[in-house]
Amino acid sequence: MAITPTPADKFTFGLWTIGWNAADPFGSATRGPLDAVEAIHKLAELGAYGMTFHDDDLFPFGCSEADRRAAIDALKKACEETGMTIPMITTNTFSHPVFKDGGVTSNDRAVRRFTIRKILRNIDLAAELGAKTFVMWGGREGAEYDFSKDIRVALERYREAANLFGDYVLEKGYDLRFAIEPKPNEPRGDILLPTVGHAMAFINTLDHPELVGLNPEVGHEQMAGLNFTAGIAQALDHGKLFHIDLNGQRGIKYDQDLVFGHGDLINAFSLVDLLENGGPGGGKAYEGPRHFDYKPSRTEDIDGVWESAKANMRMYLLLKERAAAFRADPEVQEAIAATRQGELAQTTLGEGETTADLLADASAYEDFEPDVYFDGKGFGFVKLQQLAVEHLMGAR
Amino acid sequence: MAITPTPADKFTFGLWTIGWNAADPFGSATRGPLDAVEAIHKLAELGAYGMTFHDDDLFPFGCSEADRRAAIDALKKACEETGMTIPMITTNTFSHPVFKDGGVTSNDRAVRRFTIRKILRNIDLAAELGAKTFVMWGGREGAEYDFSKDIRVALERYREAANLFGDYVLEKGYDLRFAIEPKPNEPRGDILLPTVGHAMAFINTLDHPELVGLNPEVGHEQMAGLNFTAGIAQALDHGKLFHIDLNGQRGIKYDQDLVFGHGDLINAFSLVDLLENGGPGGGKAYEGPRHFDYKPSRTEDIDGVWESAKANMRMYLLLKERAAAFRADPEVQEAIAATRQGELAQTTLGEGETTADLLADASAYEDFEPDVYFDGKGFGFVKLQQLAVEHLMGAR
Amino acid sequence: MAITPTPADKFTFGLWTIGWNAADPFGSATRGPLDAVEAIHKLAELGAYGMTFHDDDLFPFGCSEADRRAAIDALKKACEETGMTIPMITTNTFSHPVFKDGGVTSNDRAVRRFTIRKILRNIDLAAELGAKTFVMWGGREGAEYDFSKDIRVALERYREAANLFGDYVLEKGYDLRFAIEPKPNEPRGDILLPTVGHAMAFINTLDHPELVGLNPEVGHEQMAGLNFTAGIAQALDHGKLFHIDLNGQRGIKYDQDLVFGHGDLINAFSLVDLLENGGPGGGKAYEGPRHFDYKPSRTEDIDGVWESAKANMRMYLLLKERAAAFRADPEVQEAIAATRQGELAQTTLGEGETTADLLADASAYEDFEPDVYFDGKGFGFVKLQQLAVEHLMGAR
Amino acid sequence: MAITPTPADKFTFGLWTIGWNAADPFGSATRGPLDAVEAIHKLAELGAYGMTFHDDDLFPFGCSEADRRAAIDALKKACEETGMTIPMITTNTFSHPVFKDGGVTSNDRAVRRFTIRKILRNIDLAAELGAKTFVMWGGREGAEYDFSKDIRVALERYREAANLFGDYVLEKGYDLRFAIEPKPNEPRGDILLPTVGHAMAFINTLDHPELVGLNPEVGHEQMAGLNFTAGIAQALDHGKLFHIDLNGQRGIKYDQDLVFGHGDLINAFSLVDLLENGGPGGGKAYEGPRHFDYKPSRTEDIDGVWESAKANMRMYLLLKERAAAFRADPEVQEAIAATRQGELAQTTLGEGETTADLLADASAYEDFEPDVYFDGKGFGFVKLQQLAVEHLMGAR
Repeated sequence: MAITPTPADKFTFGLWTIGWNAADPFGSATRGPLDAVEAIHKLAELGAYGMTFHDDDLFPFGCSEADRRAAIDALKKACEETGMTIPMITTNTFSHPVFKDGGVTSNDRAVRRFTIRKILRNIDLAAELGAKTFVMWGGREGAEYDFSKDIRVALERYREAANLFGDYVLEKGYDLRFAIEPKPNEPRGDILLPTVGHAMAFINTLDHPELVGLNPEVGHEQMAGLNFTAGIAQALDHGKLFHIDLNGQRGIKYDQDLVFGHGDLINAFSLVDLLENGGPGGGKAYEGPRHFDYKPSRTEDIDGVWESAKANMRMYLLLKERAAAFRADPEVQEAIAATRQGELAQTTLGEGETTADLLADASAYEDFEPDVYFDGKGFGFVKLQQLAVEHLMGAR
Repeated sequence: MAITPTPADKFTFGLWTIGWNAADPFGSATRGPLDAVEAIHKLAELGAYGMTFHDDDLFPFGCSEADRRAAIDALKKACEETGMTIPMITTNTFSHPVFKDGGVTSNDRAVRRFTIRKILRNIDLAAELGAKTFVMWGGREGAEYDFSKDIRVALERYREAANLFGDYVLEKGYDLRFAIEPKPNEPRGDILLPTVGHAMAFINTLDHPELVGLNPEVGHEQMAGLNFTAGIAQALDHGKLFHIDLNGQRGIKYDQDLVFGHGDLINAFSLVDLLENGGPGGGKAYEGPRHFDYKPSRTEDIDGVWESAKANMRMYLLLKERAAAFRADPEVQEAIAATRQGELAQTTLGEGETTADLLADASAYEDFEPDVYFDGKGFGFVKLQQLAVEHLMGAR
Repeated sequence: MAITPTPADKFTFGLWTIGWNAADPFGSATRGPLDAVEAIHKLAELGAYGMTFHDDDLFPFGCSEADRRAAIDALKKACEETGMTIPMITTNTFSHPVFKDGGVTSNDRAVRRFTIRKILRNIDLAAELGAKTFVMWGGREGAEYDFSKDIRVALERYREAANLFGDYVLEKGYDLRFAIEPKPNEPRGDILLPTVGHAMAFINTLDHPELVGLNPEVGHEQMAGLNFTAGIAQALDHGKLFHIDLNGQRGIKYDQDLVFGHGDLINAFSLVDLLENGGPGGGKAYEGPRHFDYKPSRTEDIDGVWESAKANMRMYLLLKERAAAFRADPEVQEAIAATRQGELAQTTLGEGETTADLLADASAYEDFEPDVYFDGKGFGFVKLQQLAVEHLMGAR
Repeated sequence: MAITPTPADKFTFGLWTIGWNAADPFGSATRGPLDAVEAIHKLAELGAYGMTFHDDDLFPFGCSEADRRAAIDALKKACEETGMTIPMITTNTFSHPVFKDGGVTSNDRAVRRFTIRKILRNIDLAAELGAKTFVMWGGREGAEYDFSKDIRVALERYREAANLFGDYVLEKGYDLRFAIEPKPNEPRGDILLPTVGHAMAFINTLDHPELVGLNPEVGHEQMAGLNFTAGIAQALDHGKLFHIDLNGQRGIKYDQDLVFGHGDLINAFSLVDLLENGGPGGGKAYEGPRHFDYKPSRTEDIDGVWESAKANMRMYLLLKERAAAFRADPEVQEAIAATRQGELAQTTLGEGETTADLLADASAYEDFEPDVYFDGKGFGFVKLQQLAVEHLMGAR
């Protein structure tokens, strides 16, 4: 298997990732701006499939319509020249001071109205560019203090906005779905919809839940100590994996946005295995873009930026290769069988069996011998894990 | 306002809390067993409203039907004598070796069938005792290793079981609702349905979602670094706060189960304020039992056990008193108004206003001046927070 | 006891705290610059004792000597006018791109030489201003990746620099001590000397350990899940509490820099109790400035900035008042006695007792009955904790 | 390079690891006891070098002297038969109720005296068995509540005990050194000496600091979110790495004690690289036992126990093999050079250069151009990290 990226791999990058100026809470920028057209050409050269952006990444907040149009047209031209796509776009509702208490849930009603207008304008742009996914990261929707905001009321306003956007897309006939990106904290002390779970539960309260899914990010779930692969599995179960943000995070701390695989490597391996081999017949469980939402470290110059871009794609492809070998190894298959995962795929009640039948089955309870599970009937999980890690390490 | 607990306060305790033998991962028991009847009498004396239990707390795993019945009858008699209630019961599907890979999601099908039988038997007991809530804490439903279990298949089995229980209750005509208790980890490396969000999202995939809600526990959400009050607010918004477990936790670490308020005190204050004053007209937002699921520290003897039981109730009542004073303070009301929380309660679109109207409203976007939010239009959150903390400290 | 701050309370603020422009990783500044002279006057008016600063807070990086001198002279004049002091200053070795891999441990030798020069220049300024403490926060000394830097070699360079600074101060005869400020991470993935413990261990390897102590910060230790009060107690035990940074943090996440007491309130209470009442005879255990190193939330305008400054001092004074009442309460003294803390103050061996004597004392081992600690000899910790929390809440 | 363990690899296991009965806070034992003699034979067969134990692992707490002696003699015989060694032993001062508030720092003086006697007895046993390291894990030395214990006084008692043990060893002429094992929390809310840093700082306050070093454990530091490799590097710098506990941990949560490498794999790789290749001339930086302190998962039966024992050794050897290849790769050497790590190994001041010389060197400051670090002079860390991960994955 080749580890040279091609558009068929569907790798995409945010313009704000490779274009990050590397300012952080304790330091100013270490890199200058990256032109969007140059970014498109360079990403195309590296084998990417597409690029994504926030409105303010492409044209400055508050710029003239002419400047905005020029930037959009230049981007479209670059896409035409390179075959690159814009499969997703998103709106910056967090950088400008106006959003200091959030956008669609700011306590300030005028801010909320402005935010909705900014997003609607960007939805039109998404449709114009042929994007199929519209990400909403509500990074400023939240609070530092428990008494700053009535969370229930804030959720009502969030819902009002999400419903409005859904109606707008339906009315306009846009072929566009929304993907909420959860995050537990930073830049706010606590952010609304902090995990994939909270966001999916919220989506179920919307008028058109079918229009809205998730854009989970590796590091965001790991900032809450949660298992990312397990979260993605639940999102798949619930039909809500609309998009995905790949990156790396080393434990519970500030949002690191490292290269994919440079954080929890074993979890990255199980994730790629799930995405690539977890489908019903063993194929892909997710068909959309593999989107890298990371930050080239502040220590790097532009060469390091492109090295990091390449590293993301290379990590994904290497893990994909390792996952394929893992699944193909007969010893692994035997070890999986020994863990009784096959039994988990069987329903607990037999075909046609009723609760009454189960209650009448003495073998299930009265005659069942739980004590054989003491010093016996081990699950063999450690052996399987070791096989997995050895495949990850290319040691088999 | 008195701070002497009475049954009207609806304070309940798990038998496993005051009865905890104080064994932990590195030490054996420091206390002997506590008789359930004695517990009922003592809790009644202290002003509690009820007691809750796992089946195995009241009668040993695998005991004879006669022993089980004797224990149940003794409990019922004690309740009659004291006026105590049993508003909730739950099933132990985690202690015995048979549950070492979980109960309803064990890879081992025979274990799953046994678990369902054990739970069904306990549902009958819940109905017999007049409990209205049946808690399900799936503490062993999970994995240490990403390759131990296909999480999507495990969720299917979880759903199969939950649907079966729902159907059973409907069929039997029991007046009983289920409450899932999420937890991120411990005793498993990663537990299924790790947060209130994940559990609510899962509930929406059940056949009878209206039968199933949450039993969130303070410490469990805080073990994921999440804001408990915010989680409860979302659960209330979604109509899923069926029961609540109160205790204390000092940050992201092992499950501490301290006395309520002995962990994050400010968050405990905002929680009580929400529960007591967050209802539509300013009254109670939640009417059910205030259930303490805590552990009297291993350093304590039986006197310390009862001191800790009293401390839980006293903390709640003190916080309730402080919250009432906070809400009544005119300076607080002024500070809340200054944060523009009143505006958050207004819909973002005016009555009858359409998206088209908003798009036509130049004041919302074209003429809106975002720059006045630089160096201006502060939200006054810190001042309000300071007022809250001063009320919490009885300093106003 | 009054809760109006006066200079006798020794409250100090960093110019970078009240002067923070409120830019964060996801947003631009929401406030303009604050003039240092204005800051001095306003802090004096609020009852503060002094102000502190980084060189680059007072005069821009790379400015002319004339501009630097003008800023210094204006500050000195403002201090004279107000009676304010400058008890501590520190050097910015983290904001400019030149420090992107650290200052005194950058892999780049020219950067290290530049950094040492910048610090030496600032040491001269500290002496000129009569500061007694020179803080060193090595926030950029660290790495994101385990292979970026040989940590042992980096520690050698750190030591080389610290020794050079110590020699310089001795040679110049400055009455100045150094205080290292530990932090576990952010802005680097892992920072060198991540906790108070690591910094104290490192200090012991210096040529003049007596010149170097700590400037621990509440939130920095709590970002590693550590108990701040316990860390301060160890620093006091080791004679290394040279300065202290007070603020608030809500658990393990990005560095929040909230108002003191707005994070873990109970730990703030025990800290103030230790600082104020933990001395040998029950008086102050630490006599230096009570320095607030916090950030007025990004949501606030200048009014909120000053409200937050006042809140810090008010929290400290309220906690001091509560701690005094706690210590004076006879019921508390009785509860403390019940926890056997008096026995902890006795040496384990009696006066003049040798190890041989202890080995010969059958009552210590052969005749000692450990089993009485089962179901007996409880420590009464929960009762005492409840009394402490009630004092904190002003409920006694 | 072979990946079959041999005694030359110096792999050792605690008897309590492979012998863990798999009881946890929410479940009873799933495995029966493992005989020490059987353990020695089996470990020898697997290629281990030695075994370690707590006194109570080998003979029950409070057993008769005859039973104790019989157990010791049987162990010695097994060692003779197999060539296995006992390079380290340690004392259980945490399981029995008597230790519920700690051992050498319990508020209860009689407990402290008993604890010292128990440890002294075990020191004699260590000497008898030829162990060179005596580990002290003070897992119960701590508190749940800030007011339970005066931490400074507790540290005095800790020091009294440590000094007594040191004097005893010197007096007896034992060839034995002490190794303190830090841990931040669990089973206590906060444990004294929570990190490698705190323990090293404390050691510096002892009468004979040269007798006392560290036994750091991977998971314990990672439970505080700290970088284990960086901590070990600091311990090596300070000459305090006396012993090491290898295992796996998946982030900040309860103590998982997974197989080495089954947690943060990249950090395990950098650790092995440091231990094996970090010495002055590129050889071993640490010569002592590679001690596995892990727990075979509770889901496993005895086959899984031995699979997990093998997995630990195999992981270490695989990582060692990968680290050797990494160091040997010319492209890696080039990438390391590009990060300027060679410059970090140079002193910042030149040979013979004084501070005065540096101050006179205009190239260091006045003529230095910091702005070339904007958009230039990148450090190439990401590229090197990617090469490291690829070596770890066997992909080069």
